[in-house]
Amino acid sequence: MSTAIGSSAVPAGRVLALTGGVGGAKLARGLAGVLKKQQLTIAANTADDFDYWGLRICPDLDSVMYALADLNDDQRGWGVKDETWRTLIAMRRLGGDEWFQIGDQDAATHIFRTQMLASGASLAEVTGKLCRGLGIAAILLPMTESRVATRVKTDRGDLEFQEYFVRDQCEPAVRGLSFDGIDSARLHPDIVELLESDNLSAIVICPSNPFVSIDPILSLPRCRELLKAAKAPVIAVSPIIAGRAVKGPAAKMMRELAMPATATAVAHYYGDLLDGYVLDELDAEHAEDVAALGLEVCVAPTVMTSVASKVSLAEIVLDFAAGISLRN
Amino acid sequence: MSTAIGSSAVPAGRVLALTGGVGGAKLARGLAGVLKKQQLTIAANTADDFDYWGLRICPDLDSVMYALADLNDDQRGWGVKDETWRTLIAMRRLGGDEWFQIGDQDAATHIFRTQMLASGASLAEVTGKLCRGLGIAAILLPMTESRVATRVKTDRGDLEFQEYFVRDQCEPAVRGLSFDGIDSARLHPDIVELLESDNLSAIVICPSNPFVSIDPILSLPRCRELLKAAKAPVIAVSPIIAGRAVKGPAAKMMRELAMPATATAVAHYYGDLLDGYVLDELDAEHAEDVAALGLEVCVAPTVMTSVASKVSLAEIVLDFAAGISLRN
Repeated sequence: MSTAIGSSAVPAGRVLALTGGVGGAKLARGLAGVLKKQQLTIAANTADDFDYWGLRICPDLDSVMYALADLNDDQRGWGVKDETWRTLIAMRRLGGDEWFQIGDQDAATHIFRTQMLASGASLAEVTGKLCRGLGIAAILLPMTESRVATRVKTDRGDLEFQEYFVRDQCEPAVRGLSFDGIDSARLHPDIVELLESDNLSAIVICPSNPFVSIDPILSLPRCRELLKAAKAPVIAVSPIIAGRAVKGPAAKMMRELAMPATATAVAHYYGDLLDGYVLDELDAEHAEDVAALGLEVCVAPTVMTSVASKVSLAEIVLDFAAGISLRN
Repeated sequence: MSTAIGSSAVPAGRVLALTGGVGGAKLARGLAGVLKKQQLTIAANTADDFDYWGLRICPDLDSVMYALADLNDDQRGWGVKDETWRTLIAMRRLGGDEWFQIGDQDAATHIFRTQMLASGASLAEVTGKLCRGLGIAAILLPMTESRVATRVKTDRGDLEFQEYFVRDQCEPAVRGLSFDGIDSARLHPDIVELLESDNLSAIVICPSNPFVSIDPILSLPRCRELLKAAKAPVIAVSPIIAGRAVKGPAAKMMRELAMPATATAVAHYYGDLLDGYVLDELDAEHAEDVAALGLEVCVAPTVMTSVASKVSLAEIVLDFAAGISLRN
């Protein structure tokens, strides 16, 4: 078990981060603050993507983009800061849908993406162009170019993910999850290439919801094998702190899926995919249980409330990964 | 020749107004203030419609809607009042197009329309739904459900209408106009039905640009014959006052098309389609020339700077039409 000390060893090779939305985006922002341009590749979940107002919405890609550009609204917890809602209010007047809240600045992202996709661009190309527009140096990729859609089996029936997550505010009890289209989807080739590269220093599973953010990525054909075969250590940062998720329904889902809502249970859930696991200081008591799963453990302050704390956690995670690489 | 006196004879039958954008929309607003619900049908030009940001934009339908709902921005001269531009500014950051300015409230209209069209609704259905959302009682119809596109032949080459009108600010000299798709387009069946109805009291050609707003409507197959065969008088209100258009390039176009930029020239241009013509007070001297074309003439204050002046001109136009009906 390591106890984190804040050094700043930038690895020589590239780093791959797997992430969902807001929580993972914070660590992605931290990693982008430590690593050199193009050294960081972020693979984001796209199984939450959906069409709304006739626009293609990619909530996790957008959360990561806004976080990387320091445009995210920390107080609201999602979307763009200094946002306004004039289009939404006008849409209400017209009788349009308003359960998913699109701000006026955010709307530009969705309109731009929808138009580019309609003209034949790939989602990765669109994402690259959006990132350049926002001054983002890291490489952000959708997990796949294929359409994958999370469906949530609940006590109120099967729901589309955004119906469950936004419209119904995660209130229905989750009985299970499925990812429509996953079997025929392909992990984005640039992610495959990176996972097979000799120049990969670390793979970081960000503190995102394991079931609806990370699982879709891991469920893509070949993904688990590629992660296990990769020459870099796989590190996960616990999305659960003291039995709770910082944001979102992860802990509630764990209870509904008959798992203990603990950091250790997440480590167990990821299982032999991991080489190392980062626990929050509040969960230091779980270190032995995690070590008993055969994992290297790092205890660190994982709550990211400022850019400085995001960068600090990123440094800790990268140092932790470097230590594991050296030992193996 | 009649000299207008402001009475308020509401006709017994229905009224059809043909209109383009902002100028015509003012008279449409006046007519809506005089006539009973559903008594007024407004047929709007759709040859200016185009796709921008991947959205279907119908500038003339929108100008009429906003005017009927008293949401139009009188000072700017187009769009929605109290508008904001947050999406446009965000789009600029992303490197998207910004030559056509879409405000945040206006964006809701385009998004709503594009989504409904994509799900199979007709443009008339979408327009009806938008009108209901905005509390509009009059019937607003696109001139056709077919795609018709105005192309402007200029000294700088052939331009799409909005490229000429907005992007290039009407600066190129016009050599001619064509309406792509017009030959296979069909006048909206509800307009045909109204034109063939015994219950039609007046047909009003609003003070819109004759070449790019009214001509596309008149050029639709059967439109001129139906107008001539209709049992109601056809009245046009001059879009030219003292040699100038209140707004837009009509007078400049007339000069470029080797026509005198006068109210009389517009009456001559519409020709035997008309039964009556409304001149502005500043053009009273043209009354004899217009009468010499075989038309009834009405001289009235036609500059509409307030709702009251819009309603007042509408009353004059309807009285004028009633007089022509009685005489014939």
